[in-house]
Amino acid sequence: MTPGRGSAADRTTGRPPPAATVTAAALRSCFDGLAAIGRDPQRGGWSRLAWTPEDAAARAWFTAEAEGRGLDVEQDRNGDLWAWWRPEGAAGPAVATGSHLDTVPGGGAYDGALGVVAGLLAVDALRAAGVRPVRPIAVVAFADEEGARSGLPTFASRLLTGALAPATALARTTADGAPLGEVLAAAGVDPAGLGPDPERLADIAAFVELHVEQGRGLGELGAPVAVATGIWPHGRWRLEATGEGNHAGTTRMADRRDPTRVLAAAITGAAVHAVAVGGVATVGRILVSPNGTNSVPATVRAWLDARAPEQGALTALLDGWTGEVERTAEACGVAVELIEESRSPAVTFDVKLVERVAAALEWLGGAPPRLATAAGHDAGALAAAVPAAMLFVRNRTGVSHSPAEHAEDADCLAGVDALRTVLEDLACH
Amino acid sequence: MTPGRGSAADRTTGRPPPAATVTAAALRSCFDGLAAIGRDPQRGGWSRLAWTPEDAAARAWFTAEAEGRGLDVEQDRNGDLWAWWRPEGAAGPAVATGSHLDTVPGGGAYDGALGVVAGLLAVDALRAAGVRPVRPIAVVAFADEEGARSGLPTFASRLLTGALAPATALARTTADGAPLGEVLAAAGVDPAGLGPDPERLADIAAFVELHVEQGRGLGELGAPVAVATGIWPHGRWRLEATGEGNHAGTTRMADRRDPTRVLAAAITGAAVHAVAVGGVATVGRILVSPNGTNSVPATVRAWLDARAPEQGALTALLDGWTGEVERTAEACGVAVELIEESRSPAVTFDVKLVERVAAALEWLGGAPPRLATAAGHDAGALAAAVPAAMLFVRNRTGVSHSPAEHAEDADCLAGVDALRTVLEDLACH
Repeated sequence: MTPGRGSAADRTTGRPPPAATVTAAALRSCFDGLAAIGRDPQRGGWSRLAWTPEDAAARAWFTAEAEGRGLDVEQDRNGDLWAWWRPEGAAGPAVATGSHLDTVPGGGAYDGALGVVAGLLAVDALRAAGVRPVRPIAVVAFADEEGARSGLPTFASRLLTGALAPATALARTTADGAPLGEVLAAAGVDPAGLGPDPERLADIAAFVELHVEQGRGLGELGAPVAVATGIWPHGRWRLEATGEGNHAGTTRMADRRDPTRVLAAAITGAAVHAVAVGGVATVGRILVSPNGTNSVPATVRAWLDARAPEQGALTALLDGWTGEVERTAEACGVAVELIEESRSPAVTFDVKLVERVAAALEWLGGAPPRLATAAGHDAGALAAAVPAAMLFVRNRTGVSHSPAEHAEDADCLAGVDALRTVLEDLACH
Repeated sequence: MTPGRGSAADRTTGRPPPAATVTAAALRSCFDGLAAIGRDPQRGGWSRLAWTPEDAAARAWFTAEAEGRGLDVEQDRNGDLWAWWRPEGAAGPAVATGSHLDTVPGGGAYDGALGVVAGLLAVDALRAAGVRPVRPIAVVAFADEEGARSGLPTFASRLLTGALAPATALARTTADGAPLGEVLAAAGVDPAGLGPDPERLADIAAFVELHVEQGRGLGELGAPVAVATGIWPHGRWRLEATGEGNHAGTTRMADRRDPTRVLAAAITGAAVHAVAVGGVATVGRILVSPNGTNSVPATVRAWLDARAPEQGALTALLDGWTGEVERTAEACGVAVELIEESRSPAVTFDVKLVERVAAALEWLGGAPPRLATAAGHDAGALAAAVPAAMLFVRNRTGVSHSPAEHAEDADCLAGVDALRTVLEDLACH
């Protein structure tokens, strides 16, 4: 061991860890290489939507970074990239970490990216410290976590566990109308190969994902790193409102069947019913047709993203919203259809793994904070099949899915150190 | 004169006119040639937006139809096409008719198109009847009447009269971000040449535009053709709402600055305040950014189209709407800007010309119906500079700016006959 690095035994005593071997310069060097890919001058921020040229560039970056470290990179049947460190003598099920490279349109630099970068840097730190894991370690980059192309968030991790059926995935088209199967094939993923991979999952002893926090929980608690307890149940619903396209000047108000009236009810209703149950709800994507200034629209499509602390609350939110939308539609002579696009049950992370992760992090200063989150994550999808846990890194403003998303270097380094500690604990015993 | 055609003198007696020389087959042949251009399989209907390849094809169709009739076609400095019939001995200021070839996105087959087709067919009918006008007759196709590219309706006719400043026009970009000057140049219109053309206007004795009605007025009156009395004052305002882009899952409702909340108020407020003043108001075009399902939007742009029977009512509508939008924006922490994109005062068509047109149409069965309209038209723009009037052709459902827009062939033929009568009356005396 490098002198000055704390061992796992030290850490469980609550003593502070020695200075991290990963420097701010090393963090910046690795992080900025990925952040150079997919800048979006139009929206601001980053647009590395899955299966686009920007995503391909990020995947090439990952492969080069991993291979530069001597890791073996492979692509699984669902398009995920796995970078393997198999030290001499290491055997049995692996410890995996990682996150995703794709972003929402005009998203931030840290969401997903930080978890992948932290995985690579944690491996660097373990090796620099001369740590010899008895299990293989994998750093994974999951595909289309945001679902920005497929409309199906945690796309590849849910295919991997079987929570998402390949037929459901292949029935989708992207926002620009391309069948998803064709898009996947063009990106080098065989659509016929999509689906669950129980052998691969059986070879994973634990998965720990590091992710930038997407709220202000850690900012308010004054801590750089937290352990996740679970993920709120959440889902996406598509609203299709069909009225009658008409001239904006000559169609009397009483003669209109205007689908934007239903849109207004959907937006207002989402806010009202989310507050009522202590959840969150968003109408973030809206498509109007024909979308001309002097035309009463013929159709509006809008998507509801809704999340709540528990299933009953989510159901109440959705029921209240649906009632409001349907009443307005009826009053305005507009036909509506509500389609459930995805629904994720509540996730409680593996209790034993969470306790072990928390224990390994006591050097942070007593018991690390624990947080639930309303964001879906690949770790949440994997939790259905393997012991999974998450670490969150502080984001002082809480802003996420936006160019302004930010985590300070010192907090990112604390996250890398925490991840290294956890990987060492899980892979060396 | 062809035996059986009524002379202008006959018509003023109130006798029904003889069978029109323009047959349904001739109408269909001409109309369907234009309707074959710019079908939009995605939206349904027709998309011949100004300065697109579809618009260029429609302009080429017009030039070919006019030249096939031996008319001289020229393009004016604002991109309008003028087809001239100058019979031997005809002199002095001309009588002009026509309308426009462009459509809104996913618009109908008749809006604009019928007026251009009717102009060509009315010339055919006058010639077939051996009528010898003492003034030249022009059939005009005005450019970008819908303003679907420039955001400036009656684009070229307002440039022609000076109501729209070239600098205002050239400051615009199209929806896909191209500077309008470049778009015009690519379509063969020199941007440096845009502007008022008083010499051309001085050479027009009267302009009469035939247009499909865009409401159900004639349907309810049981008449095929009406004379327009005027156009409601109307305008377009752009709403720019800027909030804070954020994660749809992890941003608490209380922490949001969501610009869609302002959009909802704009939609509902438009309906409420339009009804209050007996006007109409529409939020027909909406652009959300980043427009991702799991992002609280950062910005919303939306356009208000508002019209009312008189100026005071329009001001009240706009004031009420603005107040509602601004109150919601303040409550939601969203910054808003309201930009007037265009504003057209009330138009009252030339009283003497309207009376003369009405008198010429008494063969329709007593005094023809008179209607005001809330739709802007090139005739309304020209009314500021030359005596102008309009004829409306019945549209039984009132649907317009939509694939379902329709006028029956018999009503279109009655319109052509009415236009022929008016042109003969104006050009022969």
